[in-house]
Amino acid sequence: MSRGFACGTHPLPDLASPKPGETAMSTTGKQLFTTLDADGTLIVAIEEVSFPDPTGNQVLVKMEASPINPSDLAILAGAADLENASYAPGKFVATVPEPYNTGSKARHGLKLPAGNEGAGTVVAAGDSGSAKALIGQRIACVPGNAYSQYCIADAASCLPLGDHSAEAGASAFVNPMTALAFVENAKMDGQDAILHTVGASNLGQMLTRICNEDGIGLINIVRKESQADLLAKLGSTHVVNSSSDDFMGQLRSAIEDTGAFYGFDPIGGGRSVDHAFQAMEQVAVSRMAEYSRYGSNQPKRMFIYGRLDTGMTMLSPSYGFGWTLSGWLLFPFLQAAGSGTVARMRKRVLDNLTTTFASHYKKRVNLDEMLTKEAVTDYSSMKTGEKYLVTPWS
Amino acid sequence: MSRGFACGTHPLPDLASPKPGETAMSTTGKQLFTTLDADGTLIVAIEEVSFPDPTGNQVLVKMEASPINPSDLAILAGAADLENASYAPGKFVATVPEPYNTGSKARHGLKLPAGNEGAGTVVAAGDSGSAKALIGQRIACVPGNAYSQYCIADAASCLPLGDHSAEAGASAFVNPMTALAFVENAKMDGQDAILHTVGASNLGQMLTRICNEDGIGLINIVRKESQADLLAKLGSTHVVNSSSDDFMGQLRSAIEDTGAFYGFDPIGGGRSVDHAFQAMEQVAVSRMAEYSRYGSNQPKRMFIYGRLDTGMTMLSPSYGFGWTLSGWLLFPFLQAAGSGTVARMRKRVLDNLTTTFASHYKKRVNLDEMLTKEAVTDYSSMKTGEKYLVTPWS
Repeated sequence: MSRGFACGTHPLPDLASPKPGETAMSTTGKQLFTTLDADGTLIVAIEEVSFPDPTGNQVLVKMEASPINPSDLAILAGAADLENASYAPGKFVATVPEPYNTGSKARHGLKLPAGNEGAGTVVAAGDSGSAKALIGQRIACVPGNAYSQYCIADAASCLPLGDHSAEAGASAFVNPMTALAFVENAKMDGQDAILHTVGASNLGQMLTRICNEDGIGLINIVRKESQADLLAKLGSTHVVNSSSDDFMGQLRSAIEDTGAFYGFDPIGGGRSVDHAFQAMEQVAVSRMAEYSRYGSNQPKRMFIYGRLDTGMTMLSPSYGFGWTLSGWLLFPFLQAAGSGTVARMRKRVLDNLTTTFASHYKKRVNLDEMLTKEAVTDYSSMKTGEKYLVTPWS
Repeated sequence: MSRGFACGTHPLPDLASPKPGETAMSTTGKQLFTTLDADGTLIVAIEEVSFPDPTGNQVLVKMEASPINPSDLAILAGAADLENASYAPGKFVATVPEPYNTGSKARHGLKLPAGNEGAGTVVAAGDSGSAKALIGQRIACVPGNAYSQYCIADAASCLPLGDHSAEAGASAFVNPMTALAFVENAKMDGQDAILHTVGASNLGQMLTRICNEDGIGLINIVRKESQADLLAKLGSTHVVNSSSDDFMGQLRSAIEDTGAFYGFDPIGGGRSVDHAFQAMEQVAVSRMAEYSRYGSNQPKRMFIYGRLDTGMTMLSPSYGFGWTLSGWLLFPFLQAAGSGTVARMRKRVLDNLTTTFASHYKKRVNLDEMLTKEAVTDYSSMKTGEKYLVTPWS
């Protein structure tokens, strides 16, 4: 599997980058920027910048903690050759090889912020009442430039954390809302069981807890026995190890047991989805009374929500025509689900922030430390249970 | 592109095969059967069989003409080595190579009929009024065993042909209803333009006429200049030749012009769908004001309705997460569309059988002649405009 990234989020307005001509710049601080040039040179560096005063429904957040999620890595390090990059304090310069560089053509020459989510304290607010009400409160937010000492965020999207620490709230959005959204999406589509192809991820562990709480069947695919053990301890009843000789047989049994003809995949490239569709169809065909050259009538549905493998997605012609595969992103789902559902999901996250939705971190780094070779190569390997937390003032 | 097959149809009940223990067998005639053994031996042979008397809503049809469609070839010849097969009068025996033989495991040992559709005259009927009303009439039907001198068909699915010849009505179902269904499906999904990846096929020509009549935008992809000329003569305004050096550029222009972010593909394997999604996304991205690492918000939708290429479907990670790819079959679509829509579609086919929905045939063969090496290798190559018609009494 080539190194890639997982997503679950969506473009966010770049509110906190100072814009030319803006006045009243009263706050300065460090922020991370990443630029990919047309020749494949990737420059990631910390800069001292000015932040505008918040207006209207905006708040200015002094950021305290922000996770490095797989979904952040695409923009942060992409497919760059990190081993042979040149590292200096607060900066690294790497080369993005082909075909990835050409594939990133749309961002050539753009100076982009990074960091989807984080938590901090609101230090200033625009004129609106809901913005002003947040002053002094610790909140979780999704500013899109969270690797920064300050961010501008929309008050409506801020989640007040009450007595929770910034570290407890730093990952309150991407993984919790994505895991919850999988279950919401399944329920909307009339499904009572889900297949998840990377079961032991931080998100996968949350999904396991949610499915247990909600009585939704769940098949977790893992690559190692240690991951299977971890999920079994969380109460996962159907864990299938893809390294096992009888992987497909075990997957079929799990589908037979749970009825999961519906699943989510953050790998994208290779045959992860293909194997899921194959096993689903084999279970469906085994239940058919008569042969059909067109395969079973059982609808099979998979969603790709990430690209841990940036290779080609490969689908074999072995499961008829009763299948649908889609890309999946959190924000379009939340928009379609509507504000009532989103409010209910957010409340559930907040009520269970240190239990169902707890995230654990291997290491804390400040903005300069996150750009050392040791750190970059470590968090880019995306090992299970080895998430980094950026604490920009430490 | 490896030799494969295109589909647009669906499992049909095997009504006409005599079942053990059935009595009142009054009619005998020739029928084609195909059997694939576990070792990969494919036997296709004409047999003399007895047909049961029709009961209830069934009719017995004396078949006069039946086309060999790409969707028939999977069961008829599959991926068999036809060049090195042994041919005898009314029979051939071929080997199906791996991995196709293992992929066809579900049919191993089964003796199957073939031929989705055809036309003939109703010679007997069951007790129901609608069945009896068809006696003596020439009808089109979809019996699933149309390569036969007689078939049992359900009266409800028969299309009375009036004064039309059997040859005019032989292909009244699969291609006409599939082409119409593409347009119906697009309209249901709020689309006013369609991309079709094999524009010059018999189905593609019908689709071109339908889209012109209905004011639906259509992009036809072809492989040869002669096919482009053929479609231009039919009034197709956006024909793109995939053999052209600037294929992708031309495809982007056509998408830009028509707004076709929605398409149908009978190839399945390889990168046919991938190229469509890429071009769609490139058009969408060119319209975006700001870069997004997650791609455009433009929904992109493709349907695979056949497997002319039985290789892997390959999808590159180059068009974000706003895409959906599904398998597509005619019968599930018709079921979902409902009887009112289906009746309207059938009437349109009948009213325009010799114009919009006309099929042309290269050659007429009887049941024995269709199993000669010359015939089998010729119709299996599925060349544009070279369709065969089986006339079982000639």
